[in-house]
Amino acid sequence: MGGLDGVENRGGKVAVGKQQLGRGRGCCELVLRVLGLVFTLAAAVLLGVDKQTKVVPIQLLPTLPPLDVPVTARWHHLSAFVYFVVANIMACSYAALSLVLIVTSGGASHILKSMIIILDAAMAALLFSSIGATLAVGLIGYQGNSHLQWGKVCNVFGKFCDQVLAATVLSLLGSLAFLLIIVFFVLRAHGKS
Amino acid sequence: MGGLDGVENRGGKVAVGKQQLGRGRGCCELVLRVLGLVFTLAAAVLLGVDKQTKVVPIQLLPTLPPLDVPVTARWHHLSAFVYFVVANIMACSYAALSLVLIVTSGGASHILKSMIIILDAAMAALLFSSIGATLAVGLIGYQGNSHLQWGKVCNVFGKFCDQVLAATVLSLLGSLAFLLIIVFFVLRAHGKS
Repeated sequence: MGGLDGVENRGGKVAVGKQQLGRGRGCCELVLRVLGLVFTLAAAVLLGVDKQTKVVPIQLLPTLPPLDVPVTARWHHLSAFVYFVVANIMACSYAALSLVLIVTSGGASHILKSMIIILDAAMAALLFSSIGATLAVGLIGYQGNSHLQWGKVCNVFGKFCDQVLAATVLSLLGSLAFLLIIVFFVLRAHGKS
Repeated sequence: MGGLDGVENRGGKVAVGKQQLGRGRGCCELVLRVLGLVFTLAAAVLLGVDKQTKVVPIQLLPTLPPLDVPVTARWHHLSAFVYFVVANIMACSYAALSLVLIVTSGGASHILKSMIIILDAAMAALLFSSIGATLAVGLIGYQGNSHLQWGKVCNVFGKFCDQVLAATVLSLLGSLAFLLIIVFFVLRAHGKS
């Protein structure tokens, strides 16, 4: 009987250990989801409020001297930046919704959990595409492109470009949070099988 | 005994059914992996060989008439296109390697399977970022941007731009194949638990 008790105790300890590990992983997923929400929200706001006005000399006619004209750089002047803001707002809203669903449903159903992980993957894909778009256009803004005769603009609108870069880094952190949730899910599924 | 036989038969049928379902899913994953390989390879080749030469009138001095100069559009003139080709080559090579690993290892270890699924997610992220970058730059090539004074180029290099668009669609199909592998993994993990 003593031996059986020992087995039961060990079995009990293993069960409690697994339960604690499960709770730890669940908690880790919630933290990642909150980070995803915060980073994507911060990225959307940072690019959404990005605006810089500079006085630029513009040559209207070759025979006249250049005129000093105030020019404003805004995020909605480029489709890539609009896509970035929309994608980050979508990801941030989804992160909030998924948090509410997970917290309110407690032990959420397996179908709901699967749907959430699939949507996490979709959000990561959406965010990565918007980050790629923003960085590609931002890089041309920094360097220009002599082949296409697209001049650089970040030498004039430096603050605007720095803010775009900061928003991209924040969004990258947010998308890595979504990617890490998937990594944890895969490792958990591997642990279970 | 007849009743027990019935239970055994039913149990056997369920086991066989589950085995067939597992094989079907495994086969589906292999098909998706092959599709990922083919689409990303085709996308990399299509953009890698993209080249168009046109005679364009260029004004060297305002006092001289414009000169007709042959200008060639090449994929490596833009960082976004270079990133696209490199990303697709990486995804294509990885798809080939993962196929070899899965086929040669037969019932691959759980750790290997988990590693492959995590790398699938990383490849999907890489591909989506490169698609976003290519589409963002391509869109400016089609429409131009009056705010930044970046002129459109696709009115001149139409064939080149069409080939970029075709490569992007192929790469999108490839990245969706990687994303679907993750979706199937999530659904399978849900079915097991």
